[in-house]
Amino acid sequence: MSVIAATIPQFRKMLQNLDTFLQKGVAHAKQRSFEPSVLLSARLAPDQYAFTRQVQAACDAAKFAAARLAGKDPPAHPDTEQTVEELHARIQKVVDYLGTFSAKDFEGAEARAITLSFMPGKTISGENYLVELAAPNFYFHLTTAYAILRHNGVEVGKKDFIGSLELKDA
Amino acid sequence: MSVIAATIPQFRKMLQNLDTFLQKGVAHAKQRSFEPSVLLSARLAPDQYAFTRQVQAACDAAKFAAARLAGKDPPAHPDTEQTVEELHARIQKVVDYLGTFSAKDFEGAEARAITLSFMPGKTISGENYLVELAAPNFYFHLTTAYAILRHNGVEVGKKDFIGSLELKDA
Repeated sequence: MSVIAATIPQFRKMLQNLDTFLQKGVAHAKQRSFEPSVLLSARLAPDQYAFTRQVQAACDAAKFAAARLAGKDPPAHPDTEQTVEELHARIQKVVDYLGTFSAKDFEGAEARAITLSFMPGKTISGENYLVELAAPNFYFHLTTAYAILRHNGVEVGKKDFIGSLELKDA
Repeated sequence: MSVIAATIPQFRKMLQNLDTFLQKGVAHAKQRSFEPSVLLSARLAPDQYAFTRQVQAACDAAKFAAARLAGKDPPAHPDTEQTVEELHARIQKVVDYLGTFSAKDFEGAEARAITLSFMPGKTISGENYLVELAAPNFYFHLTTAYAILRHNGVEVGKKDFIGSLELKDA
Protein backbone atom coordinates (compact mmCIF):
# COMPACT_ATOMS: atom_id res chain seq x y z
CA MET A 1 0.00 0.00 0.00
CA SER A 2 1.50 3.32 -1.04
CA VAL A 3 0.77 6.62 0.67
CA ILE A 4 -1.21 7.70 -2.40
CA ALA A 5 -3.33 4.54 -2.32
CA ALA A 6 -3.85 5.01 1.44
CA THR A 7 -5.01 8.60 0.98
CA ILE A 8 -8.18 7.72 -0.91
CA PRO A 9 -9.68 5.51 1.86
CA GLN A 10 -8.60 8.27 4.26
CA PHE A 11 -10.52 10.92 2.28
CA ARG A 12 -13.48 8.51 2.26
CA LYS A 13 -13.35 8.17 6.06
CA MET A 14 -13.07 11.95 6.47
CA LEU A 15 -16.16 12.49 4.27
CA GLN A 16 -18.03 10.05 6.50
CA ASN A 17 -16.83 12.12 9.49
CA LEU A 18 -18.14 15.21 7.69
CA ASP A 19 -21.53 13.52 7.36
CA THR A 20 -21.42 12.92 11.13
CA PHE A 21 -20.75 16.67 11.72
CA LEU A 22 -23.75 17.42 9.51
CA GLN A 23 -25.99 15.05 11.49
CA LYS A 24 -24.77 16.63 14.74
CA GLY A 25 -25.69 20.00 13.27
CA VAL A 26 -29.20 18.77 12.51
CA ALA A 27 -29.57 17.40 16.06
CA HIS A 28 -28.33 20.72 17.48
CA ALA A 29 -30.82 22.67 15.35
CA LYS A 30 -33.70 20.45 16.48
CA GLN A 31 -32.70 20.80 20.13
CA ARG A 32 -32.57 24.59 19.82
CA SER A 33 -35.72 24.68 17.68
CA PHE A 34 -34.25 26.31 14.59
CA GLU A 35 -34.27 25.16 10.98
CA PRO A 36 -31.18 23.03 10.09
CA SER A 37 -31.05 24.91 6.78
CA VAL A 38 -29.82 27.95 8.77
CA LEU A 39 -26.56 26.06 9.28
CA LEU A 40 -26.30 25.24 5.56
CA SER A 41 -26.15 28.94 4.70
CA ALA A 42 -23.86 29.88 7.60
CA ARG A 43 -20.40 31.24 6.81
CA LEU A 44 -17.44 32.72 8.70
CA ALA A 45 -17.01 35.81 6.51
CA PRO A 46 -19.42 37.54 4.10
CA ASP A 47 -17.23 36.76 1.07
CA GLN A 48 -16.42 33.16 2.02
CA TYR A 49 -18.29 30.02 0.88
CA ALA A 50 -21.22 29.03 3.10
CA PHE A 51 -21.37 25.58 4.71
CA THR A 52 -23.11 23.89 1.75
CA ARG A 53 -20.47 25.12 -0.70
CA GLN A 54 -17.66 24.03 1.63
CA VAL A 55 -19.14 20.51 1.70
CA GLN A 56 -19.51 20.48 -2.10
CA ALA A 57 -15.89 21.65 -2.46
CA ALA A 58 -14.61 18.97 -0.07
CA CYS A 59 -16.58 16.34 -2.02
CA ASP A 60 -15.12 17.55 -5.31
CA ALA A 61 -11.59 17.72 -3.93
CA ALA A 62 -11.78 14.06 -2.88
CA LYS A 63 -13.48 12.93 -6.09
CA PHE A 64 -11.01 14.70 -8.39
CA ALA A 65 -8.00 13.50 -6.35
CA ALA A 66 -9.02 9.87 -6.78
CA ALA A 67 -9.92 10.24 -10.47
CA ARG A 68 -6.84 12.25 -11.51
CA LEU A 69 -4.40 10.06 -9.59
CA ALA A 70 -5.92 6.93 -11.14
CA GLY A 71 -6.22 8.48 -14.62
CA LYS A 72 -10.01 8.07 -14.73
CA ASP A 73 -12.90 10.39 -15.63
CA PRO A 74 -14.86 11.36 -12.51
CA PRO A 75 -18.67 11.44 -12.46
CA ALA A 76 -20.27 14.92 -12.67
CA HIS A 77 -21.93 16.18 -9.48
CA PRO A 78 -23.60 19.55 -10.12
CA ASP A 79 -23.74 21.86 -7.08
CA THR A 80 -27.53 21.87 -6.75
CA GLU A 81 -27.98 20.72 -3.13
CA GLN A 82 -30.47 22.78 -1.11
CA THR A 83 -31.32 20.57 1.86
CA VAL A 84 -29.58 18.49 4.51
CA GLU A 85 -30.85 15.31 2.83
CA GLU A 86 -29.44 16.37 -0.54
CA LEU A 87 -26.11 17.30 1.04
CA HIS A 88 -26.00 13.95 2.83
CA ALA A 89 -26.68 12.25 -0.53
CA ARG A 90 -23.89 14.23 -2.22
CA ILE A 91 -21.39 13.10 0.42
CA GLN A 92 -22.63 9.51 0.10
CA LYS A 93 -22.18 9.58 -3.70
CA VAL A 94 -18.51 10.49 -3.30
CA VAL A 95 -18.04 8.00 -0.45
CA ASP A 96 -19.42 5.31 -2.77
CA TYR A 97 -17.26 6.50 -5.70
CA LEU A 98 -14.07 6.45 -3.60
CA GLY A 99 -15.02 2.93 -2.53
CA THR A 100 -14.71 1.73 -6.13
CA PHE A 101 -10.91 2.29 -6.12
CA SER A 102 -8.29 -0.22 -5.03
CA ALA A 103 -4.55 0.18 -4.39
CA LYS A 104 -3.91 -1.24 -7.87
CA ASP A 105 -5.60 1.82 -9.46
CA PHE A 106 -2.83 4.04 -8.07
CA GLU A 107 0.19 2.09 -9.30
CA GLY A 108 2.54 4.61 -10.88
CA ALA A 109 0.35 7.53 -9.74
CA GLU A 110 3.34 9.37 -8.16
CA ALA A 111 4.88 10.03 -11.58
CA ARG A 112 1.64 10.57 -13.55
CA ALA A 113 1.62 13.97 -15.35
CA ILE A 114 -1.61 15.67 -14.29
CA THR A 115 -3.14 18.57 -16.18
CA LEU A 116 -5.56 21.03 -14.58
CA SER A 117 -7.92 23.39 -16.41
CA PHE A 118 -6.75 26.38 -14.38
CA MET A 119 -3.08 25.73 -15.26
CA PRO A 120 -3.01 25.73 -19.09
CA GLY A 121 0.27 24.57 -20.65
CA LYS A 122 1.50 23.10 -17.36
CA THR A 123 1.51 19.69 -15.70
CA ILE A 124 2.10 18.59 -12.14
CA SER A 125 3.30 15.14 -11.05
CA GLY A 126 0.82 12.93 -9.20
CA GLU A 127 2.97 13.14 -6.10
CA ASN A 128 3.12 16.95 -6.12
CA TYR A 129 -0.56 17.18 -7.04
CA LEU A 130 -1.55 15.15 -3.98
CA VAL A 131 0.88 16.73 -1.54
CA GLU A 132 0.71 20.37 -2.67
CA LEU A 133 -2.84 20.74 -3.93
CA ALA A 134 -5.33 17.88 -3.46
CA ALA A 135 -4.70 17.16 0.25
CA PRO A 136 -4.40 20.81 1.44
CA ASN A 137 -7.48 21.75 -0.60
CA PHE A 138 -9.53 18.82 0.72
CA TYR A 139 -8.63 19.53 4.35
CA PHE A 140 -9.15 23.26 3.85
CA HIS A 141 -12.82 22.80 2.92
CA LEU A 142 -13.41 19.98 5.40
CA THR A 143 -11.98 22.01 8.30
CA THR A 144 -13.85 25.15 7.27
CA ALA A 145 -17.14 23.21 7.15
CA TYR A 146 -16.33 21.90 10.64
CA ALA A 147 -15.37 25.40 11.85
CA ILE A 148 -18.66 26.89 10.60
CA LEU A 149 -20.62 24.36 12.67
CA ARG A 150 -18.31 24.81 15.68
CA HIS A 151 -18.76 28.59 15.45
CA ASN A 152 -22.53 28.08 15.49
CA GLY A 153 -22.50 26.04 18.68
CA VAL A 154 -22.66 22.52 17.26
CA GLU A 155 -20.91 20.12 19.63
CA VAL A 156 -18.29 18.67 17.33
CA GLY A 157 -14.79 17.97 18.65
CA LYS A 158 -11.34 17.06 17.41
CA LYS A 159 -12.04 13.34 17.92
CA ASP A 160 -14.98 13.58 15.50
CA PHE A 161 -12.66 15.28 13.03
CA ILE A 162 -9.83 12.73 13.19
CA GLY A 163 -12.04 9.65 13.53
CA SER A 164 -10.73 6.09 13.80
CA LEU A 165 -7.05 5.17 13.47
CA GLU A 166 -5.43 1.99 12.13
CA LEU A 167 -3.57 0.88 15.29
CA LYS A 168 -1.65 -2.30 16.09
CA ASP A 169 -0.79 -3.82 19.48
CA ALA A 170 2.75 -2.83 20.47
CA MET B 1 11.31 11.32 -3.69
CA SER B 2 8.57 9.51 -1.75
CA VAL B 3 5.26 11.10 -0.77
CA ILE B 4 6.40 11.03 2.88
CA ALA B 5 9.66 12.81 2.03
CA ALA B 6 7.71 15.35 -0.07
CA THR B 7 5.31 16.08 2.79
CA ILE B 8 7.93 17.65 5.06
CA PRO B 9 8.95 20.43 2.60
CA GLN B 10 5.20 20.89 1.98
CA PHE B 11 4.53 21.40 5.72
CA ARG B 12 7.48 23.80 5.75
CA LYS B 13 5.97 25.83 2.88
CA MET B 14 2.55 25.87 4.56
CA LEU B 15 4.09 27.21 7.79
CA GLN B 16 5.69 29.98 5.75
CA ASN B 17 2.23 30.68 4.29
CA LEU B 18 0.90 30.79 7.87
CA ASP B 19 3.52 33.39 8.71
CA THR B 20 2.26 35.40 5.72
CA PHE B 21 -1.33 35.22 7.09
CA LEU B 22 0.01 36.48 10.42
CA GLN B 23 1.78 39.41 8.77
CA LYS B 24 -1.41 40.23 6.83
CA GLY B 25 -3.25 40.20 10.16
CA VAL B 26 -0.75 42.69 11.61
CA ALA B 27 -1.13 44.97 8.58
CA HIS B 28 -4.93 44.75 8.87
CA ALA B 29 -4.78 45.66 12.57
CA LYS B 30 -2.54 48.65 11.89
CA GLN B 31 -4.82 49.85 9.10
CA ARG B 32 -7.86 49.61 11.37
CA SER B 33 -5.95 51.02 14.35
CA PHE B 34 -6.36 48.10 16.72
CA GLU B 35 -3.73 46.10 18.57
CA PRO B 36 -2.55 43.02 16.56
CA SER B 37 -2.62 41.07 19.86
CA VAL B 38 -6.44 41.18 19.61
CA LEU B 39 -6.15 38.74 16.69
CA LEU B 40 -3.84 36.44 18.68
CA SER B 41 -6.56 35.86 21.28
CA ALA B 42 -9.42 35.61 18.75
CA ARG B 43 -11.28 32.30 18.49
CA LEU B 44 -14.31 30.92 16.61
CA ALA B 45 -16.01 29.36 19.65
CA PRO B 46 -15.57 30.02 23.40
CA ASP B 47 -14.23 26.50 24.06
CA GLN B 48 -11.93 26.33 21.01
CA TYR B 49 -8.23 27.23 20.90
CA ALA B 50 -7.48 30.89 20.16
CA PHE B 51 -5.30 31.87 17.19
CA THR B 52 -2.00 31.66 19.10
CA ARG B 53 -2.72 28.11 20.27
CA GLN B 54 -3.78 27.08 16.75
CA VAL B 55 -0.42 28.30 15.42
CA GLN B 56 1.47 26.50 18.18
CA ALA B 57 -0.49 23.30 17.44
CA ALA B 58 0.23 23.56 13.70
CA CYS B 59 3.93 24.08 14.48
CA ASP B 60 3.97 21.04 16.78
CA ALA B 61 2.07 18.88 14.29
CA ALA B 62 4.68 19.59 11.61
CA LYS B 63 7.65 19.20 13.96
CA PHE B 64 6.44 15.89 15.41
CA ALA B 65 5.54 14.53 11.97
CA ALA B 66 9.09 15.09 10.69
CA ALA B 67 10.75 13.79 13.86
CA ARG B 68 8.59 10.68 14.29
CA LEU B 69 8.76 9.69 10.62
CA ALA B 70 12.56 10.06 10.64
CA GLY B 71 12.96 8.39 14.06
CA LYS B 72 14.56 11.47 15.65
CA ASP B 73 13.95 13.39 18.89
CA PRO B 74 12.34 16.77 18.17
CA PRO B 75 13.45 19.96 19.93
CA ALA B 76 11.19 21.19 22.76
CA HIS B 77 9.19 24.36 22.01
CA PRO B 78 7.22 25.41 25.11
CA ASP B 79 3.96 27.24 24.36
CA THR B 80 4.97 30.57 25.87
CA GLU B 81 4.42 32.95 22.93
CA GLN B 82 2.57 36.15 23.84
CA THR B 83 3.33 38.52 20.94
CA VAL B 84 3.29 38.54 17.14
CA GLU B 85 7.10 38.62 17.12
CA GLU B 86 7.31 35.57 19.39
CA LEU B 87 4.77 33.70 17.28
CA HIS B 88 6.69 34.58 14.12
CA ALA B 89 9.86 33.26 15.81
CA ARG B 90 8.09 30.01 16.81
CA ILE B 91 7.03 29.41 13.20
CA GLN B 92 10.56 30.22 12.00
CA LYS B 93 12.10 27.73 14.45
CA VAL B 94 9.99 24.92 12.98
CA VAL B 95 10.60 26.10 9.40
CA ASP B 96 14.34 25.91 10.16
CA TYR B 97 14.00 22.52 11.86
CA LEU B 98 12.08 21.04 8.89
CA GLY B 99 14.81 22.40 6.63
CA THR B 100 17.36 20.10 8.31
CA PHE B 101 15.68 16.97 6.87
CA SER B 102 16.41 15.38 3.52
CA ALA B 103 14.62 12.64 1.58
CA LYS B 104 17.18 10.14 2.90
CA ASP B 105 15.93 10.69 6.48
CA PHE B 106 12.57 9.18 5.49
CA GLU B 107 13.79 5.99 3.85
CA GLY B 108 11.66 3.18 5.27
CA ALA B 109 9.43 5.65 7.12
CA GLU B 110 6.23 4.06 5.69
CA ALA B 111 6.76 0.89 7.72
CA ARG B 112 8.24 2.48 10.87
CA ALA B 113 6.26 1.51 14.01
CA ILE B 114 5.39 4.80 15.71
CA THR B 115 4.33 5.05 19.35
CA LEU B 116 2.33 7.95 20.71
CA SER B 117 1.98 8.93 24.39
CA PHE B 118 -1.82 9.10 24.13
CA MET B 119 -2.05 5.56 22.68
CA PRO B 120 -0.31 3.36 25.28
CA GLY B 121 0.33 -0.24 24.22
CA LYS B 122 -0.35 0.58 20.56
CA THR B 123 1.70 1.47 17.50
CA ILE B 124 0.78 2.95 14.14
CA SER B 125 2.77 2.55 10.92
CA GLY B 126 4.54 5.61 9.57
CA GLU B 127 2.25 5.56 6.54
CA ASN B 128 -0.95 5.46 8.61
CA TYR B 129 0.45 7.99 11.07
CA LEU B 130 1.05 10.50 8.28
CA VAL B 131 -2.17 9.86 6.36
CA GLU B 132 -4.62 9.40 9.25
CA LEU B 133 -3.20 11.65 11.95
CA ALA B 134 -0.25 13.95 11.17
CA ALA B 135 -1.57 15.49 7.92
CA PRO B 136 -5.24 15.95 9.00
CA ASN B 137 -4.11 17.36 12.35
CA PHE B 138 -1.63 19.76 10.74
CA TYR B 139 -4.17 21.05 8.21
CA PHE B 140 -6.88 21.24 10.88
CA HIS B 141 -4.90 23.76 12.95
CA LEU B 142 -3.52 25.61 9.94
CA THR B 143 -6.98 26.05 8.40
CA THR B 144 -8.52 27.07 11.74
CA ALA B 145 -5.82 29.72 12.24
CA TYR B 146 -6.59 30.98 8.73
CA ALA B 147 -10.35 30.90 9.41
CA ILE B 148 -9.96 32.95 12.62
CA LEU B 149 -8.20 35.71 10.67
CA ARG B 150 -10.69 35.46 7.79
CA HIS B 151 -13.58 35.73 10.26
CA ASN B 152 -11.98 38.88 11.68
CA GLY B 153 -11.77 40.62 8.33
CA VAL B 154 -8.13 39.94 7.41
CA GLU B 155 -7.78 39.79 3.63
CA VAL B 156 -6.35 36.30 3.21
CA GLY B 157 -7.49 34.13 0.31
CA LYS B 158 -7.27 30.58 -0.94
CA LYS B 159 -4.19 31.41 -3.04
CA ASP B 160 -2.34 32.51 0.12
CA PHE B 161 -3.34 29.22 1.70
CA ILE B 162 -2.20 26.93 -1.13
CA GLY B 163 0.90 28.93 -2.06
CA SER B 164 3.31 27.97 -4.83
CA LEU B 165 3.05 24.72 -6.82
CA GLU B 166 5.80 22.61 -8.42
CA LEU B 167 4.68 22.83 -12.06
CA LYS B 168 6.33 21.65 -15.28
CA ASP B 169 5.79 22.80 -18.86
CA ALA B 170 3.37 20.43 -20.60
